[in-house]
Amino acid sequence: MTIFAGEVSLEELQQRVLLAYQRVRGETECLAAPLSVEDMQLQSMPDASPTKWHLAHTSWFFETFLLAPYLPNYQLFDPHFHHLFNSYYNSLGTPYSRPQRGVISRPGIERIYAYRQSVDTAIEQLLDIVPITSTISALLDLGLNHEQQHQELLLTDIKHALSMNPMAPAYSENTHEEEAERVAALCWLEIPGGFYGIGSDGEDFFFDNEGPVHQQFLPDFSIASRLVSNAEYLEFIEDRGYQQHRLWLSDGWSLVQKNDQKHPLYWRETKDGWQQYTLHGLQPLNGFEPVHHLSFYEADAFATWAGKRLPTEFEWEAAACHLRQVNQLASANLLEKRYLKPLAAQNGHTQFLGDLWEWTSSAYLPYHGFKAHKDAVGEYNGKFMCNQKVLRGGSFATPSDHIRISYRNFFYPHQAWQFTGVRLAGD
Amino acid sequence: MTIFAGEVSLEELQQRVLLAYQRVRGETECLAAPLSVEDMQLQSMPDASPTKWHLAHTSWFFETFLLAPYLPNYQLFDPHFHHLFNSYYNSLGTPYSRPQRGVISRPGIERIYAYRQSVDTAIEQLLDIVPITSTISALLDLGLNHEQQHQELLLTDIKHALSMNPMAPAYSENTHEEEAERVAALCWLEIPGGFYGIGSDGEDFFFDNEGPVHQQFLPDFSIASRLVSNAEYLEFIEDRGYQQHRLWLSDGWSLVQKNDQKHPLYWRETKDGWQQYTLHGLQPLNGFEPVHHLSFYEADAFATWAGKRLPTEFEWEAAACHLRQVNQLASANLLEKRYLKPLAAQNGHTQFLGDLWEWTSSAYLPYHGFKAHKDAVGEYNGKFMCNQKVLRGGSFATPSDHIRISYRNFFYPHQAWQFTGVRLAGD
Amino acid sequence: MTIFAGEVSLEELQQRVLLAYQRVRGETECLAAPLSVEDMQLQSMPDASPTKWHLAHTSWFFETFLLAPYLPNYQLFDPHFHHLFNSYYNSLGTPYSRPQRGVISRPGIERIYAYRQSVDTAIEQLLDIVPITSTISALLDLGLNHEQQHQELLLTDIKHALSMNPMAPAYSENTHEEEAERVAALCWLEIPGGFYGIGSDGEDFFFDNEGPVHQQFLPDFSIASRLVSNAEYLEFIEDRGYQQHRLWLSDGWSLVQKNDQKHPLYWRETKDGWQQYTLHGLQPLNGFEPVHHLSFYEADAFATWAGKRLPTEFEWEAAACHLRQVNQLASANLLEKRYLKPLAAQNGHTQFLGDLWEWTSSAYLPYHGFKAHKDAVGEYNGKFMCNQKVLRGGSFATPSDHIRISYRNFFYPHQAWQFTGVRLAGD
Amino acid sequence: MTIFAGEVSLEELQQRVLLAYQRVRGETECLAAPLSVEDMQLQSMPDASPTKWHLAHTSWFFETFLLAPYLPNYQLFDPHFHHLFNSYYNSLGTPYSRPQRGVISRPGIERIYAYRQSVDTAIEQLLDIVPITSTISALLDLGLNHEQQHQELLLTDIKHALSMNPMAPAYSENTHEEEAERVAALCWLEIPGGFYGIGSDGEDFFFDNEGPVHQQFLPDFSIASRLVSNAEYLEFIEDRGYQQHRLWLSDGWSLVQKNDQKHPLYWRETKDGWQQYTLHGLQPLNGFEPVHHLSFYEADAFATWAGKRLPTEFEWEAAACHLRQVNQLASANLLEKRYLKPLAAQNGHTQFLGDLWEWTSSAYLPYHGFKAHKDAVGEYNGKFMCNQKVLRGGSFATPSDHIRISYRNFFYPHQAWQFTGVRLAGD
Repeated sequence: MTIFAGEVSLEELQQRVLLAYQRVRGETECLAAPLSVEDMQLQSMPDASPTKWHLAHTSWFFETFLLAPYLPNYQLFDPHFHHLFNSYYNSLGTPYSRPQRGVISRPGIERIYAYRQSVDTAIEQLLDIVPITSTISALLDLGLNHEQQHQELLLTDIKHALSMNPMAPAYSENTHEEEAERVAALCWLEIPGGFYGIGSDGEDFFFDNEGPVHQQFLPDFSIASRLVSNAEYLEFIEDRGYQQHRLWLSDGWSLVQKNDQKHPLYWRETKDGWQQYTLHGLQPLNGFEPVHHLSFYEADAFATWAGKRLPTEFEWEAAACHLRQVNQLASANLLEKRYLKPLAAQNGHTQFLGDLWEWTSSAYLPYHGFKAHKDAVGEYNGKFMCNQKVLRGGSFATPSDHIRISYRNFFYPHQAWQFTGVRLAGD
Repeated sequence: MTIFAGEVSLEELQQRVLLAYQRVRGETECLAAPLSVEDMQLQSMPDASPTKWHLAHTSWFFETFLLAPYLPNYQLFDPHFHHLFNSYYNSLGTPYSRPQRGVISRPGIERIYAYRQSVDTAIEQLLDIVPITSTISALLDLGLNHEQQHQELLLTDIKHALSMNPMAPAYSENTHEEEAERVAALCWLEIPGGFYGIGSDGEDFFFDNEGPVHQQFLPDFSIASRLVSNAEYLEFIEDRGYQQHRLWLSDGWSLVQKNDQKHPLYWRETKDGWQQYTLHGLQPLNGFEPVHHLSFYEADAFATWAGKRLPTEFEWEAAACHLRQVNQLASANLLEKRYLKPLAAQNGHTQFLGDLWEWTSSAYLPYHGFKAHKDAVGEYNGKFMCNQKVLRGGSFATPSDHIRISYRNFFYPHQAWQFTGVRLAGD
Repeated sequence: MTIFAGEVSLEELQQRVLLAYQRVRGETECLAAPLSVEDMQLQSMPDASPTKWHLAHTSWFFETFLLAPYLPNYQLFDPHFHHLFNSYYNSLGTPYSRPQRGVISRPGIERIYAYRQSVDTAIEQLLDIVPITSTISALLDLGLNHEQQHQELLLTDIKHALSMNPMAPAYSENTHEEEAERVAALCWLEIPGGFYGIGSDGEDFFFDNEGPVHQQFLPDFSIASRLVSNAEYLEFIEDRGYQQHRLWLSDGWSLVQKNDQKHPLYWRETKDGWQQYTLHGLQPLNGFEPVHHLSFYEADAFATWAGKRLPTEFEWEAAACHLRQVNQLASANLLEKRYLKPLAAQNGHTQFLGDLWEWTSSAYLPYHGFKAHKDAVGEYNGKFMCNQKVLRGGSFATPSDHIRISYRNFFYPHQAWQFTGVRLAGD
Repeated sequence: MTIFAGEVSLEELQQRVLLAYQRVRGETECLAAPLSVEDMQLQSMPDASPTKWHLAHTSWFFETFLLAPYLPNYQLFDPHFHHLFNSYYNSLGTPYSRPQRGVISRPGIERIYAYRQSVDTAIEQLLDIVPITSTISALLDLGLNHEQQHQELLLTDIKHALSMNPMAPAYSENTHEEEAERVAALCWLEIPGGFYGIGSDGEDFFFDNEGPVHQQFLPDFSIASRLVSNAEYLEFIEDRGYQQHRLWLSDGWSLVQKNDQKHPLYWRETKDGWQQYTLHGLQPLNGFEPVHHLSFYEADAFATWAGKRLPTEFEWEAAACHLRQVNQLASANLLEKRYLKPLAAQNGHTQFLGDLWEWTSSAYLPYHGFKAHKDAVGEYNGKFMCNQKVLRGGSFATPSDHIRISYRNFFYPHQAWQFTGVRLAGD
């Protein structure tokens, strides 16, 4: 999201910022609302964090980067929190051990909410009494986008944690939503080669890793109009996709062998057929929905099996821009989007944004000329530019106004607990 | 504890059982009372379990071994619990993975208390309508003693979990207790050799591993009148005890090297001197108190350093019996005992029971003629008779009426999170 | 073996020592003779050592404990060897990392043999010019017995290493030996209870852990006249012994589950039926031979399945002494024994010595009054008295004159690469 | 190397092939010549292989891909070898476990040489009697280039193995070679932006991953005229480079912390100052030589510290081509090159080839349009295109005629046992 673009009066700006701030902070708490105190304590693997930690860390971010340096006489809510809720900013001291986040019972959830409240009050104060410089506005923008990232992580992490429970509990009930009853035909969009502008640098908010904007030369390529469906992925499984080494990258094949893996993370083969663990609990597999929670290795093996390949992140961005120009891509759709809406309902047309994070074949590397910020905030993105793959497009769990075409998400190729999916490409 | 010894009328028996049952069950809940919902969710290592799990598992024990087989028409409270709260009884199906107990957020604590309540009601019903056979009375006795074991484990486990928190939170406040201000002189009790009766088989409750009763021939030996103190252990540290390989058993030395260990589990060397993490939070080390939370390796290395040795479990039992005959050992004391009373106050005289679990040099092995029960309940003790060491005496956290001279506790030699201590012996 | 017992003239003594020394040293080299240079380099697991290392370490032992302190002006053969070939004597400096022994290609085997030769020459010199004090004679005895221990280890270690090779190469050809064609009937020897003398302290050589000699009171017991055979163990397997948790100690069951173990270490289930990897390569399983290479857990589970138990080390020793008195137990046999003779040929009668190391139920603990020597040599046995089990009797691969009734071998309960077997006992 | 380019008569071609084949095969054996039988058996980590295995596997390659399919009536030398010496070709059956290569003592080295001899004879026969089709010539080319790759790996692997020995033995003596006595001035070559042709597709041999040839657009950049020296890297260390988290990629920093790493793999800080383990044993660190055996993380951290960056693989290739046009880059030098010549002597001028493998910032990914071959040989390169980094330029240990500008080597970012170095780039 972006709150500072355009020219407005000071008062209007303060007003707009406050509303945006309150909305985003409120949305985080809405996401935590269906959870019990115990749920919020869970950490089911080192990659994931407790809900409670997400609630605290997002507040810590505002406290650390805005309140402490810019609000006169600000007192830390609790000096221990500076260490406890630091995610990975070594510039601010050794962070508390990530795999041990689930062992922190105190502060309890009530105190975490008090922390949020206290930070919120202080931010309102700051908006009231401190002139909004460009530094402050950039940090506010960053803080809110940071919190939106954690909104999605909160969901992916709690999904993983609840999935460990043999009772397969639901995060929320799925009372009224329509189910996907068909899947759109798959078309191949032909994109002509040439130079394409890549990245972001406008007035709207973007992360540092989306710049510098530059031209990228691309050959002709084609890209699928929709994501791969569960039914299509099932064909891969039934064709012994997990047993054919030649479909797999070497590291992926080692992993599949070691874990004796035979299906995606949340699929379960039961006597009643294939089921899938979802945020609404265990459900029969819907063949019309996009397959999700694949690792990069699975996505790549599927593409090889299908005689296709994954797009590069540049192809993906070029195709998405191309479509936007053609038909003002999915703009209406974005306004309607709500968290946890069934994927299929969003998938009836050529949509690149807001379904699932789409694995690309691109390694996560800096764009030419990228320099990380010298301060602690420079640790946000740059230091992770090794061993990871770029994902594009945002998922149904990403806040709508957090999604944009130039957005570069990144995860390790073995990770599958994010809301990931596959779109095929060809030459 | 024992509830069935002696001859009483049926009514009196029912009454007595009910009172005992209610008391023990209530004591467990008292121990959990100071904890927050999040605290009760914590599992800080595979050896330890969440408080919530202890609360549930002890109820599961009554449900599984008494209600399901003996209460007509009993319906399981929740069929999932049969799997979730099985600790290690393979005869009842593969138990839920022990190291993953902390990942179960649901059932939440309220439902666990409802489970306890439901089991309690059903037990009352059972006492009301089912004739108390010797099998049932044995199982009731076992269930209550089992619950008492978990009362202590609840404390040791939550202590370990809270100790991981950099804020070193207290399990409970230490408002009114007197501190140890001196340590008793250490005397050597000389015990003459000969045959000593070992084990238990009377009317009072005992675990299967305490029998069969048998005669053990012992040579003359001497045994210390009190436990080793913190101050004495500090001498060992200051004499570079953790750096002298020749004081250590080979496996212990490997561990000390690997972990770069330099002091007991809960000691912290701070700029203000030695501190110790306790159930009341971090506290200055009191030199007069018995040293606790040692592993067997540490206990053994200390004894070697001191030119002494650890007693065998038979020597320990013989010495304790000997003293009981002499002076009705510590009987008054046992009545006064309360959980969490400072150790030092209990240590002014020759007391073998109720301070700390005392490591013996004996491997945990069956007494001659021991046979485990054929049913699931036979998995209680017998299958663990390998690789562990016997501890004797009970700790300040053991319920007073759960302690007896013949009691054989057992842990692996590297484990230090129990309330363990050292008493020296010599020839 | 013992070289110093009895009164003899100095010359005769020198002569006798020299012959014994040369014989034992030569036997070690005979065992290495069938091996290639590459074979002698192998280390297939941390527990095992390369043949080359055994050849060097046994020489190091003489150099370190005899030549360096007692031969005037002795110069170390190579100062690096002091570190490289120290097994576990921390008193002599940090030993070279055990699991990395296989990574030492230099010194090569020729230099190792030169080392042996040089040590041998120096020992001859020492015998020539230094008066044989009791200290020196004790160390010579120890050094030769030490070398005999490594003779067996050399075989167990190379067997394990060669077994890893998919080609299942033979250590030596099995050209002329008769095969077992029947198994002796199993009788139960009834041994009356009472006090039995345990341990060794005479003129003959014994390790420190065999003393002090003491009386042990034993109840009546019975013990099998022979070891369990392959055919009998196969019944256990076919009765799903590896799938029945209730037969197993808890730690053993965990291991079986983790490794998905279904048969003894060297058994292979092939399309041609059961085969067994032996020092002569892969061979059809001979049902008449004693089952060997069991872990303690397997031995114990088998005994439980058979409705019996393992003997304690004291029962074993008492039974062996009892038989010796009755019939001068197997003495003729011992003289005839040769390395690698088929087990079955040795098994036609009630023999306790020289077939396989027999697991006992006893934990490896010090006898009452045991004190390890203060010097480095005190690290020989004492520091291992934790977590291990005692084995008795010696195996076909143990030098005949190294075997005695009081001998206490010890290994961890999971270890199966030694020549281990099972003898049952009952009450 | 390339043996089939250009038009020649059949006889001349046969002659040329034979000479090339004999030369390359002979060079491999020359590299093994200084090693003892034991040396050739060593495997010091899963990444590395025994010399013996390299000798066998390179023969296996010819046997598997040429002799078995194309030489009429060819009988496998030993059917076991098909499994034992398969490196990673799953299409040919599950390869023998890589980390266990060092446990195979048999076949011994003599039999391996017999295998080589037998394959050589059969290849000569094949050249004699089978018409050299384009398939066969391509496979011969591939086989020889494959063997040349293993020549370098043989050296890197044995260096690693010997370095584990506390005696730091030399692979070969360094008797006559001059030492670097100065380091060339570092100049910055300014390369203008534009389209550059990347990859290889001519008549000369190249690996599949070097194609398809394509145009790559590059912005202006500068690149250093020489590699970073030991002296320069020492400045980084002395400036606490290994302690400053902000110089490191996140994964690199985790590794440095975990391993407590403070210097490159083969550096040793001794009381006589910095030393370096080399193929000639331990030697004083020569500040004038290029720093080598860095991981990608170290290379990247150094570049960040220096205010520069690593070149992309495209920049590297463009710069190397640019220089070649200017001054027929280092062509004389290549002819003179010999294995193990001191680096410094080769470093007096602007040379990109044959010093050290230079880490680039590029992830190892397929060039646009790359397709792996469908057969087993397609497993050569393609399946490794994930998680690795591209290195360029060849090292002093790479055969001169195996080096070319388009060559793409690839290793994981943590690996440092190859002959790797750093060249800086800037914008």
